[in-house]
Amino acid sequence: MTTTIDGPVREAVDRVRVQVAALHAQLVRYELVVWTAGNVSGRVPGSDLFVIKPSGVEYDELTPESMIVCTLDGEVVEGEHSPSSDTAAHAYVYRHMPEVGGVVHTHSTYACAWAARAEPVPCVLTAMADEFGGPIPVGPFALIGNDDIGIGIVETLKDSRSPAVLMQNHGVFSIGKDAKAAVKAAVMCEDVARSVHIARQGGELVPIPQDDIDRLYDRYQNVYGQR
Amino acid sequence: MTTTIDGPVREAVDRVRVQVAALHAQLVRYELVVWTAGNVSGRVPGSDLFVIKPSGVEYDELTPESMIVCTLDGEVVEGEHSPSSDTAAHAYVYRHMPEVGGVVHTHSTYACAWAARAEPVPCVLTAMADEFGGPIPVGPFALIGNDDIGIGIVETLKDSRSPAVLMQNHGVFSIGKDAKAAVKAAVMCEDVARSVHIARQGGELVPIPQDDIDRLYDRYQNVYGQR
Amino acid sequence: MTTTIDGPVREAVDRVRVQVAALHAQLVRYELVVWTAGNVSGRVPGSDLFVIKPSGVEYDELTPESMIVCTLDGEVVEGEHSPSSDTAAHAYVYRHMPEVGGVVHTHSTYACAWAARAEPVPCVLTAMADEFGGPIPVGPFALIGNDDIGIGIVETLKDSRSPAVLMQNHGVFSIGKDAKAAVKAAVMCEDVARSVHIARQGGELVPIPQDDIDRLYDRYQNVYGQR
Amino acid sequence: MTTTIDGPVREAVDRVRVQVAALHAQLVRYELVVWTAGNVSGRVPGSDLFVIKPSGVEYDELTPESMIVCTLDGEVVEGEHSPSSDTAAHAYVYRHMPEVGGVVHTHSTYACAWAARAEPVPCVLTAMADEFGGPIPVGPFALIGNDDIGIGIVETLKDSRSPAVLMQNHGVFSIGKDAKAAVKAAVMCEDVARSVHIARQGGELVPIPQDDIDRLYDRYQNVYGQR
Repeated sequence: MTTTIDGPVREAVDRVRVQVAALHAQLVRYELVVWTAGNVSGRVPGSDLFVIKPSGVEYDELTPESMIVCTLDGEVVEGEHSPSSDTAAHAYVYRHMPEVGGVVHTHSTYACAWAARAEPVPCVLTAMADEFGGPIPVGPFALIGNDDIGIGIVETLKDSRSPAVLMQNHGVFSIGKDAKAAVKAAVMCEDVARSVHIARQGGELVPIPQDDIDRLYDRYQNVYGQR
Repeated sequence: MTTTIDGPVREAVDRVRVQVAALHAQLVRYELVVWTAGNVSGRVPGSDLFVIKPSGVEYDELTPESMIVCTLDGEVVEGEHSPSSDTAAHAYVYRHMPEVGGVVHTHSTYACAWAARAEPVPCVLTAMADEFGGPIPVGPFALIGNDDIGIGIVETLKDSRSPAVLMQNHGVFSIGKDAKAAVKAAVMCEDVARSVHIARQGGELVPIPQDDIDRLYDRYQNVYGQR
Repeated sequence: MTTTIDGPVREAVDRVRVQVAALHAQLVRYELVVWTAGNVSGRVPGSDLFVIKPSGVEYDELTPESMIVCTLDGEVVEGEHSPSSDTAAHAYVYRHMPEVGGVVHTHSTYACAWAARAEPVPCVLTAMADEFGGPIPVGPFALIGNDDIGIGIVETLKDSRSPAVLMQNHGVFSIGKDAKAAVKAAVMCEDVARSVHIARQGGELVPIPQDDIDRLYDRYQNVYGQR
Repeated sequence: MTTTIDGPVREAVDRVRVQVAALHAQLVRYELVVWTAGNVSGRVPGSDLFVIKPSGVEYDELTPESMIVCTLDGEVVEGEHSPSSDTAAHAYVYRHMPEVGGVVHTHSTYACAWAARAEPVPCVLTAMADEFGGPIPVGPFALIGNDDIGIGIVETLKDSRSPAVLMQNHGVFSIGKDAKAAVKAAVMCEDVARSVHIARQGGELVPIPQDDIDRLYDRYQNVYGQR
């Protein structure tokens, strides 16, 4: 911890600490994670900081206070623990996708199954057209330890409407305008990965025509939910 | 909000608000929904109104007060939020099926899997004969935004004993004499969609002869449960 | 209600009411049932009575007081509700299998999948050898409304070590020395039906030699658990 | 109970009693066990003792006081109940693997599915490379009642980086530096057994090159988590 944060950034950091800590409960609730795998981060508005889960800490023990605050280079600014071992990937996304306010990583079961085959999830459900606007793409195999995972995420997502990418042989990274939107994308990714897997086990899928996918995606992104 | 509701309709609306809000918990309990997907509505007896979930609101936050009251044309009469984005489909069902008192929509996993193949669920379990009286039928692919989904639901269900329809590439709509019966049909639909999917993954299904299906359906609809 | 029960049978009935009501929670916990499907019964020691779930009542509402007491002919002796619609099958088992003190019926998912193919679950797990002593057998297709289901259960189980039978196109009936043992058999039946289904989806099963099955079954029935 | 334990060993035993009792809740939470199947044990540091679950007792009823303390030969030193019927296997592992401080046994579903085919789980996920360093191996078919299961566990694990072994037609045994680490291995074993099963149902798996598996394993064992 090398910096003192105060003023409006202090308040923003503390608000994001509360949000990010609480959102991890959604990963547990929707069974996207086991043990300490998986993590949520959120960019701190009006700053070059983000808040992320500590490494190797159990979900039941997460509190706003135990969250780690990092710079966009992944350097720890506040935190008693080490940050998530996936911090470099989150940081890379924040540096290269300024519109992204939240990042989530999971090893959710059905998404990992597609990832272990390096196969995109085809868009055959209207809910998937709504949320993903097409298939959920596959990113490259990349080892942890440098920027390879971050590069793979950004390179894959910049060519896709999808807010989630299946990193080959690894798991899901999802993004959103804030941490909650990224968690929603992670939840929906597993949900459609499961439904489409099961659908295809039973026979031929019926495709949705691309222009119908386009119409569904446009409407959902613009008119759904409370205004 | 353009009308003031009072007298006996006031009481009926408030009763249905309580029922519809509470029934959403069954969708969560039986894991028929994730995030804010899915919705329950109930017709208000003695009126041309129905009560439905607000759009994009989380299940944990639903209360009787947050429910939306609509006319049978889907116009909002009471409610601070927008109604479910599926309101037009619910309204169409209530206008064209006067015996229906409740409608449920979900994207439950196994039902969606059959829907993504546009394949009816064959009736190979006695519990399915009891509740559905035959296969669970598939309705047409239809985009949201006009009456196409409502038309597809009504056209499919009017030729079937089934209280549930798998809308192609979309999900389930179920109906009942009231909202609780429609929820039961949605729960049973996913249950049999799952059992029959798994059954067929293991080999050839044994059919139930049609006259036995007829006998089971007749008995269940007429003598089961508390009189 | 035509009889007054008192003395030691009164106490025994009340004890079994408590046990049978509580055991239904295990069906819910292990997800063997949805909505109001499934039922547990228990013979009242020292009498010609058994206690069973009321028909069509939700699991959350079951209390010792709402249980139904029946004669071994299935006639209601105590109870405000109708007894389970499966009461005749339970009664038939009690009349023809005097060693049986508990009966359970479910439509649990994986067991139903085998039942919809009329295929016994092969014994390829030591836990299955322990509890079932061989395959879980399939009983005949039978309609509700007379003794056909009861006859099918008894005829199938009398030639088997298994405490559970998969009734074709229907579901599971399990038995035990008391209601708790029958519930355990229903839980284990679904557990092994699931594991063996999944095993076979992945390739060839390795059989367990019959004499090893015999050794495992003998040991488990005689030495396992607290003496 | 033939010995009186006091002094620092008394404190160590009581500490391990608390840990082992509590860790069984993780088996329930991650649905690795049904009814009374499955068990956790932990070596008592500074002694030739270990603590294990009593046989045939339900998970909800486990307390630190109901745990059983055994010598490394599996003889009961403290305990009102019989020890787990798998005690001999745990004891054999402690005698022959001095670095092991915890052992877990489950019949978790997907692991049993691979075990029923005597097929190792291939290493196609980075999380699996991290934790298992390669495939999860299969141990021999062995009957309970002597040291055959223990021998099979030790012979299989000594040639593997994996902290878990799939005993053929039986289930999982996992090990760790303490009981918590062994529980983690059991949880991760089921998680990857499930993901890889589902992956392969959908088509060809993409292998991870062995040197990448080696790099991932090395990093995870040495730098992950809180220092």
